[in-house]
Amino acid sequence: MSNSDRWLLPDGVADVLPPRARRIETLRRTLLDQYQRWGYELIIPPLIEYLQSLLTGTGNDLDLQTFKLTDQLTGRMMGVRADMTPQAARMDAHSLRRGGVTRLCYAGHVLHARPNSMLASRTPLQVGCELFGSTSHSADQEILDLMLGTLQTAGVARVHLDLAHVGIFQCLAAAAGLGEREESRIFDAMRRKSIPELDELLGDTQSGSYRDMIRSLARLNGGADVPERARRMLAGAPDRVQAAVDELEKAAERVRQRHPEVSVGFDFCELRGYNYHTGLLFAVYTPGEEEAVAQGGRYDAVGEDFGRARPATGFSADLNRLLRAGGDADGEAEPACAIWAPAEDDAELRARISELRRNETVIQAMPDDTTSPRELGCNRQLVRSEDGWAIESL
Amino acid sequence: MSNSDRWLLPDGVADVLPPRARRIETLRRTLLDQYQRWGYELIIPPLIEYLQSLLTGTGNDLDLQTFKLTDQLTGRMMGVRADMTPQAARMDAHSLRRGGVTRLCYAGHVLHARPNSMLASRTPLQVGCELFGSTSHSADQEILDLMLGTLQTAGVARVHLDLAHVGIFQCLAAAAGLGEREESRIFDAMRRKSIPELDELLGDTQSGSYRDMIRSLARLNGGADVPERARRMLAGAPDRVQAAVDELEKAAERVRQRHPEVSVGFDFCELRGYNYHTGLLFAVYTPGEEEAVAQGGRYDAVGEDFGRARPATGFSADLNRLLRAGGDADGEAEPACAIWAPAEDDAELRARISELRRNETVIQAMPDDTTSPRELGCNRQLVRSEDGWAIESL
Repeated sequence: MSNSDRWLLPDGVADVLPPRARRIETLRRTLLDQYQRWGYELIIPPLIEYLQSLLTGTGNDLDLQTFKLTDQLTGRMMGVRADMTPQAARMDAHSLRRGGVTRLCYAGHVLHARPNSMLASRTPLQVGCELFGSTSHSADQEILDLMLGTLQTAGVARVHLDLAHVGIFQCLAAAAGLGEREESRIFDAMRRKSIPELDELLGDTQSGSYRDMIRSLARLNGGADVPERARRMLAGAPDRVQAAVDELEKAAERVRQRHPEVSVGFDFCELRGYNYHTGLLFAVYTPGEEEAVAQGGRYDAVGEDFGRARPATGFSADLNRLLRAGGDADGEAEPACAIWAPAEDDAELRARISELRRNETVIQAMPDDTTSPRELGCNRQLVRSEDGWAIESL
Repeated sequence: MSNSDRWLLPDGVADVLPPRARRIETLRRTLLDQYQRWGYELIIPPLIEYLQSLLTGTGNDLDLQTFKLTDQLTGRMMGVRADMTPQAARMDAHSLRRGGVTRLCYAGHVLHARPNSMLASRTPLQVGCELFGSTSHSADQEILDLMLGTLQTAGVARVHLDLAHVGIFQCLAAAAGLGEREESRIFDAMRRKSIPELDELLGDTQSGSYRDMIRSLARLNGGADVPERARRMLAGAPDRVQAAVDELEKAAERVRQRHPEVSVGFDFCELRGYNYHTGLLFAVYTPGEEEAVAQGGRYDAVGEDFGRARPATGFSADLNRLLRAGGDADGEAEPACAIWAPAEDDAELRARISELRRNETVIQAMPDDTTSPRELGCNRQLVRSEDGWAIESL
C-alpha cells in the first residue's frame, strides 16, 4: 500500500472538518439544552459493554450491526454500541433504579458493522431521549413532540411523519400460527416492501384469513383514511389488532392537532425497530434524505429482560444527518472575527491576550509561520502602541 | 448467566449517570470554547479507521492498545481509535492540506483494549489540542500554556509538570549501537523505572560510555538542578543530546516564569509517548491521581509517515479524570429550579409550557406517575388560575 492510500477511510466513515464540526457541536449543545429544559437528564453510556448486556432484549438486526470484540482481560465477548437506546434502558433499570418516571437523554458515537444502506454512515452521532416508567399515551406524545421539536431546532423544513404499530403484525403472525423462521422471513419481506416475495412466502390464502390480512397489511399505507381501511381489512382480527389501529389513529390525530405543519401518514411495513419495540413506532422523513432523519417508538420489554419491567418510549436521530437535512451551509466561510497577535514573547502582550481571550478569539503568530492572519479568520490585530498593546483593524 | 449479572460492565468501563454526566458536559463545553478562543478549530475524527491509517507513524504500545475489527464490507482490518492525536495528524496532512500553521482541537471517546493501569478507564473521554506546521519553541510553549490552562479551568489545584525529551534516550541508544530489540527492552525497563533490570540489560559498563549514560539517565530526575547534572553526566554525548538538555532547561524556565504556581521537574524515564513522539514531552500530575491528568509533546514524524512532513506538538487529557482531579462534587444534589406542570392535555397549558421552556426547565407529569415534583428537582408548579396558567412555588 502506497503512502497516498494509507489515509483512505472505510466506506461509511468520514472525517468531520472545520467549520462543519463546529456546526455539529452547536447543534449538539442546542439539542441537549432543549432536552434538559423538558426534564431529560443527560447520561453518558459506555462505548463498549459485554455483548450479553448490550444485546439483552434486542433482536437479530442489532446483533448483526454490532462490532464484536474479545475482552483481553476476561476472554468474554464485548461489543461496541450500535444503538444507545438499549443502554439507556439498562441504565434506567439497573444503574438508576428509580421508582417513578425517568427521562434520559444522550449524545455520542455509535458504530455499525454494516451500514443501513449504501450511503449510510457507519459511525452515526446519535442523539436521543428516552422516557421510562409510563405506559400512557402522554409519554408517547411527549416523545413525539420532542422529536418534532428536534427537527425544528435543526431547521428541517418539510417533515413527514410515518406512524406504525408493531402489535398489529405480531398479533396477526401469532394468530396465523407462523413459525419463528417463517415469521422472520415474512417480516423481512414486508420491511423491504417486496410484494412478490411476500406473495410467495404466504402462499395461496383464503380471503379473510390471518395470512390474507398480513398480505393486505403490506399494501396498507397512506394518509388519514388508512385507519378506516385497516379496520375493514382486519375486521376478523383479534381485539388487540383493533386496539392497535385505534391507538394509531388517536396518535395521528394528536400530532395533526399539535403540529399542523407536519404531514402524517401510516406505513405498516415501517417496522425497523421491531428489534426491541413493542407498540407505537414513528419515523420522520424529509425530501432529499432516503433514510428516516429521526425515529423511535415504544419498547416496554427491554427493561423486563434486564430483570425489571419498565415501560419505555423514546426517539433518536443522527446529528450529521440532522445537520444535512436542516440545510447545512457547507462551504460557507465563517465571518472573520478573530484577533491576530505577533510572535513576541512579551509579558505585557501575554497579559493583554489572556484578558482578551475571556470573550474573544486571539491567535498568536508562530515565528516560522507564513499564513496570513486573514486566512485564519482574523479581522483585527494587536499592535504595540505608546499606551501598550492596542487593537487595530487588519 | 442470571438476569442480575446481565448488566455488569467490563473492568475499566463505567456508566456516567446524572448529575455527573451534566458536569462532564459542562467541562467539555468550557474547554472546547477555551480552545476556540486560542484559535483551535474543532474536528470530529472518525471512531474507526483502517488499522494501517490508524497506526501509521505510531509505535507498538498503541498497536497493543487498539481494538481490532474486521471490516465486513472489505475484509480489511480496522481499529477503534485508542488515541485521537494520530487521527488529527492524518487530518492535518491529508484532509485539510493547509500550508501554514494549523491548530485543531477535539473531544470524544477513545477505546483501550488494555487499561493503562489496574484502575484506569478503558473508555477515556479524550479532549486535546494539536498544533501543526511550526517547529518553534513558541508552538510547544503555546501547547504547554493551553494544557496548564485546561487544568486551571477544570479546577485542578496542585499541579506538577514533568518535562522530558525523547531525543536524549534515542540518541544515546543509537550512539551505543543498541539493536532494535535491545533498545526496546531497555526502554521498557527505563519506563518502569526498574533499575535492577536495567543494570542487567546494560551489563558491565565502562564509566563515560554511552551505555553508562543510559544507566545514569534512569536515575536522573528531580527539579531545577537536573539540567546541570545532566550536562555533567552526558558530557561526552553527541551534540544532539546536549541540545536536548538545553531545550528542556529553557522550556522549564519559560513555564516557571509564566506559571509560577506550577511545580516543574524533569523525569527522563517519562517516555510514555515514545510511540510517536520525537522531542519535548510533558506530563502533568496532581496528588490523588496515579496517572498523568494531561500529557503531550512534540511528534514531528507522524505527518511524514502519511507522506507529508509536518512538525507537530499537542496535548490531551481525559475529561473524566480532569473532573475528578478538579474535585468533582459527586453526590452533591443540584439546586431545585424546575417547574412542574400537571398531566393535562390543554392547548393553553401547552402554549404556556412551550413559552417557558425557552429559558426554564418544565417537567410535565405523566398520568400514571407517582414521583413527587420535588424528587425531580422542581421548586415551582403551573397552576390553573383565573388569568390562565400561573406559576406558584411548590
